[in-house]
Amino acid sequence: MRIHLIGLGKMGANLALNLKDHGHEVIGFDLNDSARAELTKQGIETHDELTTFLTRKKNDRFVVWLLVPDKIVDNVIDQITPYLKEKDIIIDGGNSNYKKSLARFEKLKELDIEFVDVGTSGGTFGARNGACLMIGGTKEAYQYLEQVYKDISVKDGFGYMGGPGAGHFVKMVHNGIEYGMMQAIGEGFELMEKSPFDIDYAKVADVWNNGSIIESALINYTKNAFLKDAKLDEIEGRIDDSGEGKWMIQEALDFGVAIPVIGASLFTRYKSRDEEKFSEKVVAAMRREFGGHAVYKKK
Amino acid sequence: MRIHLIGLGKMGANLALNLKDHGHEVIGFDLNDSARAELTKQGIETHDELTTFLTRKKNDRFVVWLLVPDKIVDNVIDQITPYLKEKDIIIDGGNSNYKKSLARFEKLKELDIEFVDVGTSGGTFGARNGACLMIGGTKEAYQYLEQVYKDISVKDGFGYMGGPGAGHFVKMVHNGIEYGMMQAIGEGFELMEKSPFDIDYAKVADVWNNGSIIESALINYTKNAFLKDAKLDEIEGRIDDSGEGKWMIQEALDFGVAIPVIGASLFTRYKSRDEEKFSEKVVAAMRREFGGHAVYKKK
Repeated sequence: MRIHLIGLGKMGANLALNLKDHGHEVIGFDLNDSARAELTKQGIETHDELTTFLTRKKNDRFVVWLLVPDKIVDNVIDQITPYLKEKDIIIDGGNSNYKKSLARFEKLKELDIEFVDVGTSGGTFGARNGACLMIGGTKEAYQYLEQVYKDISVKDGFGYMGGPGAGHFVKMVHNGIEYGMMQAIGEGFELMEKSPFDIDYAKVADVWNNGSIIESALINYTKNAFLKDAKLDEIEGRIDDSGEGKWMIQEALDFGVAIPVIGASLFTRYKSRDEEKFSEKVVAAMRREFGGHAVYKKK
Repeated sequence: MRIHLIGLGKMGANLALNLKDHGHEVIGFDLNDSARAELTKQGIETHDELTTFLTRKKNDRFVVWLLVPDKIVDNVIDQITPYLKEKDIIIDGGNSNYKKSLARFEKLKELDIEFVDVGTSGGTFGARNGACLMIGGTKEAYQYLEQVYKDISVKDGFGYMGGPGAGHFVKMVHNGIEYGMMQAIGEGFELMEKSPFDIDYAKVADVWNNGSIIESALINYTKNAFLKDAKLDEIEGRIDDSGEGKWMIQEALDFGVAIPVIGASLFTRYKSRDEEKFSEKVVAAMRREFGGHAVYKKK
């Protein structure tokens, strides 16, 4: 199938090569010169102008796959819509909020353009060698593209999640679970680090990843990290987040669902970036007021 | 190697068969008649009296492997010790508290008997087909038994964790991480259940388990559970625990380590068994006192 791919960053470039390997015709778009040059070298046609990028062949049904940051998705859709006609398909393969995906679906439906939200997991390695795809949109669009999904996924690593928005909703839940699992693993290793035992963390992770109940892709990544840096001396304990955990907690608030572990995982990430520690100051100051307990003076 | 196995329950029986498959001579002990009968049928010599069970051959170095509940380990050790001599090895393959394992190691050291703590993961399937073993004790005892560990484990699924107590310590941490990962997964599915989407949970778990970042043994178990009971209508949301999570939080308190996610996971299990909800009553009663908010009268 002919696929127009917008966004040739790490995920997009790897997905382009994955699609090409499976015999699909990939046409790439990115404003970044070096991103385009990299793919051109690998034999993929690239563009930086929509007029040449979205050239329609006779009876062509466009499939435009976006792998761009959430915040520019609307802008990109607005810019490409004039080139599209009814039955064309826009896929958002990025990490968008499912509510925005629902709104985009509704808006494009008025133009009879299909909008498909595809949650993509597996990182850049997955994008290149076999991704995991959580797919929303209409059943018709799903069936039209099913072979493409199959080609670029791990075996059985794709599925129709149940209607517009469901792909990004399930991906959001996936990422929330990921936060919680990661934090649990982090806490376990911290307890070992503070224990009297002198433990080889890469080895522990390797043993755990062969037959234990917590055997997982995450434990495997953990092992690789410790193999590179046995005590993680080279990095700081600051954790960014890309929004999905926040969205998940917002949904939990709206649905009235308690998700203490996923909540604590996100708050731990916030706390990891907090150098001011204002709440801690408040508590330390209170202890001094009522109990005369010592506080640490700022240096 | 000749292995004396005490405790022919689910784990012990499966481990016995696993050892036998790999050419080891297994002699089993259990007071339970049907547990013995089951293994006898499978060609394993079993006993219910220590005098016949612990018959020493010339120059035999006993390896007595315990797979019994934590609370009877000391009792079993006391009963078998008179039959043991220096250099014999006792392995505790159950879920014992590592501090007790350290104390047992020290006590048996006085008799020159080796005590090895082995954390065993992988469930009954693992015990039968390939376990994951976290091994403590002395390096000498580890090396003496290394081939046995290798035979009954998943490939690379065993290792020396670093001295007496380290096997059960690492297993405790494993189980704490397991609690956190499980709770994160539970919360994710609850959010989906309370969402407007009609999601096939077995399918979601299957997709996640093929190429996603949260691919794991636990997601696979989750898939199997949903395949049996699509909405888990047949079971109650009460979760037991077997102590390791509690031990881990006790250690975190002693070491001064924050493990909010693992803590919340254990407390969620306690709360799941709490029918009285006293803290909730207190809060509801306070809201009535200061705000005149309605309370729900007991039916």
